Amino acid sequence: KHIVVIAGDGIGQEVTAVGKQVLEAIAQKYGHEFTYDTALIGHAAIEATGSPLPDETITKSKASDAILFGAVGHPKYDNDPSAKVRPEQGLLGIRKALGLYANLRPIKLFDELLSASSIRPEILKGSDILFFRELTGDVYFGEKGRSEDRNTAYDQMIYSRYEVERIAKKAFEAAMTRRRRLCSVDKANVLESSRLWREVVQAMAPQYPDVVVEHQFIDSAAMLLIKDPRRFDVVLTGNLFGDILTDEASQIAGSMGMLASASIGDTTGLYEPIHGSAHDITGQGVANPLASILSVALMLDISFGMKAEAEEVVAAVDSALKAGYRTRDIADADTPGGMILGTEAMG
Amino acid sequence: KHIVVIAGDGIGQEVTAVGKQVLEAIAQKYGHEFTYDTALIGHAAIEATGSPLPDETITKSKASDAILFGAVGHPKYDNDPSAKVRPEQGLLGIRKALGLYANLRPIKLFDELLSASSIRPEILKGSDILFFRELTGDVYFGEKGRSEDRNTAYDQMIYSRYEVERIAKKAFEAAMTRRRRLCSVDKANVLESSRLWREVVQAMAPQYPDVVVEHQFIDSAAMLLIKDPRRFDVVLTGNLFGDILTDEASQIAGSMGMLASASIGDTTGLYEPIHGSAHDITGQGVANPLASILSVALMLDISFGMKAEAEEVVAAVDSALKAGYRTRDIADADTPGGMILGTEAMG
Ligand SMILES: CC(C)[C@H](C(=O)O)[C@@H](O)C(=O)O
Ligand SMILES: CC(C)[C@H](C(=O)O)[C@@H](O)C(=O)O
Repeated sequence: KHIVVIAGDGIGQEVTAVGKQVLEAIAQKYGHEFTYDTALIGHAAIEATGSPLPDETITKSKASDAILFGAVGHPKYDNDPSAKVRPEQGLLGIRKALGLYANLRPIKLFDELLSASSIRPEILKGSDILFFRELTGDVYFGEKGRSEDRNTAYDQMIYSRYEVERIAKKAFEAAMTRRRRLCSVDKANVLESSRLWREVVQAMAPQYPDVVVEHQFIDSAAMLLIKDPRRFDVVLTGNLFGDILTDEASQIAGSMGMLASASIGDTTGLYEPIHGSAHDITGQGVANPLASILSVALMLDISFGMKAEAEEVVAAVDSALKAGYRTRDIADADTPGGMILGTEAMG
Repeated sequence: KHIVVIAGDGIGQEVTAVGKQVLEAIAQKYGHEFTYDTALIGHAAIEATGSPLPDETITKSKASDAILFGAVGHPKYDNDPSAKVRPEQGLLGIRKALGLYANLRPIKLFDELLSASSIRPEILKGSDILFFRELTGDVYFGEKGRSEDRNTAYDQMIYSRYEVERIAKKAFEAAMTRRRRLCSVDKANVLESSRLWREVVQAMAPQYPDVVVEHQFIDSAAMLLIKDPRRFDVVLTGNLFGDILTDEASQIAGSMGMLASASIGDTTGLYEPIHGSAHDITGQGVANPLASILSVALMLDISFGMKAEAEEVVAAVDSALKAGYRTRDIADADTPGGMILGTEAMG
């Protein structure tokens, strides 16, 4: 299997280095051969080539069996709304170029992290949600622009039936292998694109008679997610609402530093922590590598069909947590100082 | 003072009835004279007139000194994405017709409700956030439609400099009377309308040198809001992001049933609970009227300049909670059955 590592910006470098070590450990133990290449994206790519997504990165990605991705972003651009070239264009561009329309974000609480969350343990315990976030449509990719005098700005939120159907299909199928509940999130009381979304999901539901389908408005879903996370099994939603809900849901898992994601389409899959580039802690060696490690587990499972290997990685994370090891973001007041590890040691 | 009561749908009827009783109690105690009228909106208006917002409702509202609003919505429409006439059009229509561009949503935790929240008490204690949600722009009011074959649907997210400026001004001014922190929430790393938003807020900041301004992306804000609610003072955001964040923030106050809002523009203000029509509990007499009562407090304060009267209403809510009274939504396992009151008794 040939893997392209696109580390990107900030702590992306540190955490993918650890993810790669885990791939190597699996290769050795199970007798697989993994080969690697690297490619540029984001701020790092802008600095080196002027473009946030060099052609070479796309070519290498398409030729690979899977992509291990870090993060993109840089504070410089966040504070300069008029910048034309931005690191995030790299990430959005590669999602689009590879047709990665389904972003899977599993939110599962490791019991040992119950106390790392701001939510009460009795509300959290047993939470296990799988998000399907649509990733190549919505207001992210609709036409955007300014009026001539630059005093008005717009972005088009847009969905086609086909786009909704293909992600909904994946979500329904996943629900069949889980607790058979699917919650579709939209804002159909206000948005036309959401009404289409709801229409499509409603029309598909009879094909999956064993799946209990509910529809929630995004405002209500954002509330229910923390009020009663256990009511959710599979959550299906659009690009923007999925972005918001999954970041919010990181509190269910204790920390953003724990959350992995798989972006899949019809060919090469991309595996990426949900956390961003985190420039405030970059270079300090304190970033939590577990999201990158769990992204590797998703890669082994989904792209390579290596179930046992994937389970071994998850079990390793679990046993490190059970043994009391923590990175700073998931430590609490009771964690002994000596058990708080840096990025490499946790790896 | 002349007040139009627009009760609307579901529990809107029950809770505004209690809100009105509180207005009457204040009138008697302080020797004010309040006169009342009623007007139709939402599903109730559709049933009676065919329109979710009859002209008469707008005429009466414009002629009044303030509006006490209930809720709109009906499950019938939620499950029928193709309905042309919808209850929510009434609410969106009145916001637009009266130019109610600033929606103030104070999120303040009554200490007695610490245990009603899904968030840990030590994270919550002392939280006090004032949201400024823009209310007459964004994807709510941009052009929306379908392709001819109805297979593609779109909504335009759109903001003008002027729209951002007038709400930002209110938020900065409010921050000056509070803890002087303002967090502006957008998605400027992806959306052009958010880049305009950020530009405008950045350009205004130097006029308020005492206010510490920060910018957060909506995904990150949705996470930080529950991870560390005390870091927020005034939060300024657009219509859609404000809708999502304030519903989520209801967990900070223990329940949606506690949250009031004021929608203000250049003339008549509208006062409304954040909760919706809640058809699942309509007619049972169990709805929490405190959001409507606290909306009355906002009306007394903001529209009538009656500070002492407003404070007395808030103090009355506080003392009812201190005495142990709860509606069902804010009761917990330790609340004695006899202290769980219905809508009227709580009023
Ligand atoms: C960096 C940003 C463009 C991106 C997004 O909004 O999709 C990120 O927040 C994510 O969730 O992957
Ligand atoms: C009913 C709905 C249209 C409305 C909105 O989205 O604005 C409601 O959720 C609110 O927050 O007032």
